[in-house]
Amino acid sequence: MANNSKRWIEIEGSVTTPAGYRASAVCARIKPGSKRKDLALLVSDRPAVGAGLFTQNRVVAAPITVSERHLKGSAGKVQAIVVNSGNANACTGARGMKGAEKMTEEISRRLQLIPEATLIASTGVIGKSLPWSRINRAFPKLLSGLSHDGGESFSDAILTTDTCRKLSILRSKLGGQTVTVAGTAKGSGMIHPRMATMLAFITTDVAITAHLLREVLSESVAVSFNRISVDGDTSTNDSIFILANGASGCRKIIRRDTAFEHFKEGLLQVCISLARQIARDGEGAKKLITLEVRGSRTIAEAEQVARAIANSPLVKTALAGADANWGRIICAAGYSGASIDPSQVDIALNGLKVCRHGQATRFDEVLAKRLLERPDIRVDVNLHRGRASTTFWTCDLTEEYIRINASYRT
Amino acid sequence: MANNSKRWIEIEGSVTTPAGYRASAVCARIKPGSKRKDLALLVSDRPAVGAGLFTQNRVVAAPITVSERHLKGSAGKVQAIVVNSGNANACTGARGMKGAEKMTEEISRRLQLIPEATLIASTGVIGKSLPWSRINRAFPKLLSGLSHDGGESFSDAILTTDTCRKLSILRSKLGGQTVTVAGTAKGSGMIHPRMATMLAFITTDVAITAHLLREVLSESVAVSFNRISVDGDTSTNDSIFILANGASGCRKIIRRDTAFEHFKEGLLQVCISLARQIARDGEGAKKLITLEVRGSRTIAEAEQVARAIANSPLVKTALAGADANWGRIICAAGYSGASIDPSQVDIALNGLKVCRHGQATRFDEVLAKRLLERPDIRVDVNLHRGRASTTFWTCDLTEEYIRINASYRT
Repeated sequence: MANNSKRWIEIEGSVTTPAGYRASAVCARIKPGSKRKDLALLVSDRPAVGAGLFTQNRVVAAPITVSERHLKGSAGKVQAIVVNSGNANACTGARGMKGAEKMTEEISRRLQLIPEATLIASTGVIGKSLPWSRINRAFPKLLSGLSHDGGESFSDAILTTDTCRKLSILRSKLGGQTVTVAGTAKGSGMIHPRMATMLAFITTDVAITAHLLREVLSESVAVSFNRISVDGDTSTNDSIFILANGASGCRKIIRRDTAFEHFKEGLLQVCISLARQIARDGEGAKKLITLEVRGSRTIAEAEQVARAIANSPLVKTALAGADANWGRIICAAGYSGASIDPSQVDIALNGLKVCRHGQATRFDEVLAKRLLERPDIRVDVNLHRGRASTTFWTCDLTEEYIRINASYRT
Repeated sequence: MANNSKRWIEIEGSVTTPAGYRASAVCARIKPGSKRKDLALLVSDRPAVGAGLFTQNRVVAAPITVSERHLKGSAGKVQAIVVNSGNANACTGARGMKGAEKMTEEISRRLQLIPEATLIASTGVIGKSLPWSRINRAFPKLLSGLSHDGGESFSDAILTTDTCRKLSILRSKLGGQTVTVAGTAKGSGMIHPRMATMLAFITTDVAITAHLLREVLSESVAVSFNRISVDGDTSTNDSIFILANGASGCRKIIRRDTAFEHFKEGLLQVCISLARQIARDGEGAKKLITLEVRGSRTIAEAEQVARAIANSPLVKTALAGADANWGRIICAAGYSGASIDPSQVDIALNGLKVCRHGQATRFDEVLAKRLLERPDIRVDVNLHRGRASTTFWTCDLTEEYIRINASYRT
């Protein structure tokens, strides 16, 4: 596995960079008065293998129910994903379900596909009914706008309180063919490490079986999107989709061979990149915090500790204030549920050891402050109990998070 | 049990209002440069029965270890509690332990008690060593200041980022004698529903066995302090102490009879009052939020749902902004882990039904906004699954929480 990192090269582009994809986005005024693009469409020129992962919340938005059903009905022949922002279509009852169905049916009809060939995702406010007629009126322009350059416009239209577009595109050679994996995501609030925890859309021109695509997606999400947290809330709408249309002409991946590992490596890299971009752009966040928990008995134990630290508002506000308050970090580790021995714990902040054997080192406060003013903060926690470790990403918690969320609906 | 509420009357006073208690507080400059009172002492004139409940964090501050040991050694003859703010004496290793021991030994020596007769609690920053010499220099003044009017001064000295003193004093007749139960607490940050979750000190002149005192304290804390949450963090120093010195002259409670029930009723009322005061004064909070979760299968299920709602930053910021964003409430219920059926859930905010059967009602947004601008917000959630229910208290989450916590240590 030496030098794997060089097998995939980062390139500029979008979700329409892999061969055989087009996209488009328009403003349908889903949120009354808004002038942002809020309706987006991604289309594969040929039937693609599709897979999806969805929220674990008991309250599940209508588009998720529809997408899950469609994926079961057409895992080998997905061709479109329609996405709206500005309305989550969650807690909207039978009318909401009807709306999600109509959206997919109408797209499929206009693209001359079977109804199940279109998947759907929504994001926005919960409990408001979907403005179907405004959406329907926007469809002709959405369809006519489809283009191989439409990927960036797609990425913009799915955003809500995000401050920037999230993209990761990788290219490699697989069995002599040039293959591409591209992903885009929206995040910001309600980001929590339980399976799919935001919207993410991944396209590739690799050819692979539906079964292996589901497996590789699950395995990649487990160590990327499931290891980020913004605020501990799990949304009703979280979805990750991947389409693999085989348009690169590469040989189809049908078993867990070296080609599968090669593809997985690229997909994982895209997932981790998007997850980090989401954490960095958490609502109000100014800093990306990378937690490295080492020396645990098991990976699960490391995750338990990392999650408690990542979700502690006290840790996150301290790091917002560039305050080397490591006491809050060891405190969160202490209530994480893991059987840690506090007197064994070491903590370093951006390489500066601030706690050794559970006690303060004589560190330089001025230096610590300067290190913590950087936009990237690395928190190293060593439990000295074993050999397992994990990486987890979160962001700092600022006053801006409150400002955004105290008036999101209105 | 009819008309129980009238058996205990709320009165003005402090923890020195029950017979036979004195208190004192001084400024020992534990936090360099501070001019606040930060060292407090509570003394019972006669040996009292004592009980305590402590944090469930794996990282336990030195004063907790010392108090637990002393309670085991002298449950029937506690006479003093020394408390400091400004320094948690947590993660301070052998020196911290030595400091906590010296503090109790010195108080006991000066009061001519056995060492175990003094309990100790600390609150403040984690990982800084205790300024023993400054504390020791303050002891003479602390001791000489002891008075039957010292209770309010004690209540002030234990505060950190609290904006107000927390007190609850109740009086009743028990077997012909006037008895009093008085409590004071400090809260603000790191308040989370796992057992004792802040500092609280309760005094009473009732006579009771050590065993029954422990039982009645556990039972009362379970439905009061364990049902509040400010930010989901569990401190390393949380402690609740109760002293019962029998100075009222009432007959000693030695079994779970009507006198026991009578006393429990008063203690429970004090605990609930203090818990609510802590939630209302959560760091940066402007509003007390009372969650009533009903219609669950079990009390545990109701608590699971209430806790998820109470800990959701999105719910708490919405209520800070007087935004009737019930979608975030049902969303939190959905990821709580309880097997709720979203299509059965009703939600009311200050009496206004905003969600019926998991969907929006046609409520008046202007009225909702006005109702949510009140300092007291009641959130009613009915799961329609059973007959169990619970009450839980929390506060809104404001920009002020961030301001306080981004620079607490410095």
